[in-house]
Amino acid sequence: MPTPLPLAHRVDDLVGSVIDSSTSLLARQTHDIVRFAMGAPSDDLMPVELLDRFSACREADKYSYGATEGVPAMVDQIVKLQAEHGVSTSPERITVTTGGMQGLDLACKLFVDPGDMVVVEGPTYSNGNATALSYGARLLEVPVDEQGLDVDALVERVEASGRTPKAIYTIPNFQNPSGVTLVRSRRERLLELADEWGSMIIDDDPYGLLRFEGSHVPSLSELAPGNPRIFSVRTFSKILAPGLRLGWVDADPSLQPLLINAKQAMDTCTSVPVQTTVREFLDGGHLQPHMDRVLHLYKQRKEAMRAALDRTFGDAVTSTDPEGGFFLWVTFADERIDTEQLFPQALAEGIAYIPGAAFSADRNFHNALRLCFATSTPERIDEGVARLARAVERHASAQ
Amino acid sequence: MPTPLPLAHRVDDLVGSVIDSSTSLLARQTHDIVRFAMGAPSDDLMPVELLDRFSACREADKYSYGATEGVPAMVDQIVKLQAEHGVSTSPERITVTTGGMQGLDLACKLFVDPGDMVVVEGPTYSNGNATALSYGARLLEVPVDEQGLDVDALVERVEASGRTPKAIYTIPNFQNPSGVTLVRSRRERLLELADEWGSMIIDDDPYGLLRFEGSHVPSLSELAPGNPRIFSVRTFSKILAPGLRLGWVDADPSLQPLLINAKQAMDTCTSVPVQTTVREFLDGGHLQPHMDRVLHLYKQRKEAMRAALDRTFGDAVTSTDPEGGFFLWVTFADERIDTEQLFPQALAEGIAYIPGAAFSADRNFHNALRLCFATSTPERIDEGVARLARAVERHASAQ
Repeated sequence: MPTPLPLAHRVDDLVGSVIDSSTSLLARQTHDIVRFAMGAPSDDLMPVELLDRFSACREADKYSYGATEGVPAMVDQIVKLQAEHGVSTSPERITVTTGGMQGLDLACKLFVDPGDMVVVEGPTYSNGNATALSYGARLLEVPVDEQGLDVDALVERVEASGRTPKAIYTIPNFQNPSGVTLVRSRRERLLELADEWGSMIIDDDPYGLLRFEGSHVPSLSELAPGNPRIFSVRTFSKILAPGLRLGWVDADPSLQPLLINAKQAMDTCTSVPVQTTVREFLDGGHLQPHMDRVLHLYKQRKEAMRAALDRTFGDAVTSTDPEGGFFLWVTFADERIDTEQLFPQALAEGIAYIPGAAFSADRNFHNALRLCFATSTPERIDEGVARLARAVERHASAQ
Repeated sequence: MPTPLPLAHRVDDLVGSVIDSSTSLLARQTHDIVRFAMGAPSDDLMPVELLDRFSACREADKYSYGATEGVPAMVDQIVKLQAEHGVSTSPERITVTTGGMQGLDLACKLFVDPGDMVVVEGPTYSNGNATALSYGARLLEVPVDEQGLDVDALVERVEASGRTPKAIYTIPNFQNPSGVTLVRSRRERLLELADEWGSMIIDDDPYGLLRFEGSHVPSLSELAPGNPRIFSVRTFSKILAPGLRLGWVDADPSLQPLLINAKQAMDTCTSVPVQTTVREFLDGGHLQPHMDRVLHLYKQRKEAMRAALDRTFGDAVTSTDPEGGFFLWVTFADERIDTEQLFPQALAEGIAYIPGAAFSADRNFHNALRLCFATSTPERIDEGVARLARAVERHASAQ
């Protein structure tokens, strides 16, 4: 009888934190699936031709190691992009990352000791929770409503816990998975609370540039320029293409040496040819025209999805009405519906989504699910919602 | 007076573990530097034209998320590559990683709890130590001699510690930084000890395919096929191009679900266009011809470096004589020479290396340094060694 492998205690949390309706599972499916699960644009909404063209650009040292904090010309483009959207930053605040996910990994590496309390939104991005858990964090889930993170509930729950959070993890714009946006007054309150508690704010904003209606809400950095408690995690995944795996952290300059050391021990540097490709794309002024084109379509797709849900389910579901981003959050009125139990049936019908409980540290939201409207055309959205309705019907009749 | 930021305890280890003679520092230098520091081929020894060409290949889903364990066609190519070099593996053993560094990060995430003892070689790859430290490992440094890790010293030191190691981190071939290769009898002993102690062997082999003289030594996996304690970390960085950031883990199939979950919380998946590029390169049969070409040149470069060292320093230095890989390990006979103190002078003279102590958990090897012969032509190697000699001379006369 061989001795078992000497696994770390944290692997128990790793196992529980990621659900099977992931890229890996979907990659193994061979039948036609309407992909409402992953938060990714469809191929036709990514500038594939330009990316291919810029991938072939000849450049010295393109295939060698790059500086850990990012290729300098890439960092400069990021500073410029931020400035164009009202955020003043500088190269010593920027660390290029292997997607936004690595920004979250870095945040936890820098701030989370085992046993530390980290506030997370309920619901929130499941891999955000997973990363914090992998560093031994204790998660304190605080509800989100239509105005974003409920800051009054935050105060109550933190007081009830008898301790202060090391970090507060928030997705302020078109939140994943709910689609809601944190209102300005709550952003201001959140900044006050972080100062009061000595907490970091992990400001994860993959979708902020993807507003297709309504008015801009000032970012945390716009409200409190230079506040060292704001650790901003950004990515090109949603505004350009997720397969690239390119993002950045915008943080207090005092943190940059730590970020460099931490990232060296994660992946040394971010892929240099990927940085070259995106730098060329930005340098050519292609990002804004690209976003102008896709935002119009995302708005159409959101409206198509809401209309299809309304037409198909009527009062049997409620859904959020995001002004940007990728996601609708759908809640079944019938609390007996469990979207994790429903999932195999849905996959069999050819529709993928992410069950609500996956987004909850406390396994709440069993009768909710996240739908991504960005990946599918209005026609496919109609088809997907129809398949979802069939799955619900069959699931109900099988019980 | 603002409250300090709530940094995790581990950042103290992050700060100490990475030295300044890194990519980041070198990227900021504007004068001519002979680059003996980083372990990277020169641009002319990377198949830049082919990589650029394959980067532009059109492929469906190329810019979307890929499966976390790797794009299936990429995994198949890795299995084939391993088979061509005598290692039988299978897709359920493979996880594609963002460079070999992420393989080490994954190993520590899966096996290292805070306080666990990890055996490391002295000297060894500094970022390997850094990763283990970032998970709270206590490092037990065991010396390396001309036959690789000293397994008798390993037994002694483990016994003296009064506990067993959770993992043993070894670089068996053309070790970084020493250039030495673990002999077969010691590999067999290491496998026995890992079984006896219940330890994982983190088998980090970036250079194994880069043998330019001498005879193949069977890998740990060849000696003990299917042994679940062998966690093999591999990379395309040294055989192809480090800037890509592409590698893989070959591990027991029982670990794959854990690796997928852990990697999802690190960077979701490895860059899909990078996987596409390398898959096309491998699929076209370009790797072996490329390696045949560069191995011949690496041998020349190693010989040029050893000859230049001998001509310039004579008995004042000893150096190892690797049969493959990228590195020579140079030790000054004069123990008063401190290669960390020498470093600024060397950089001013236009020569970069890595000081010996950077490769030691115990800060040993102060009078040694690592030189990479792979990056420079024989002429540049002569120039670099001459600059090193001038730096040593000026440093000595300044004291």
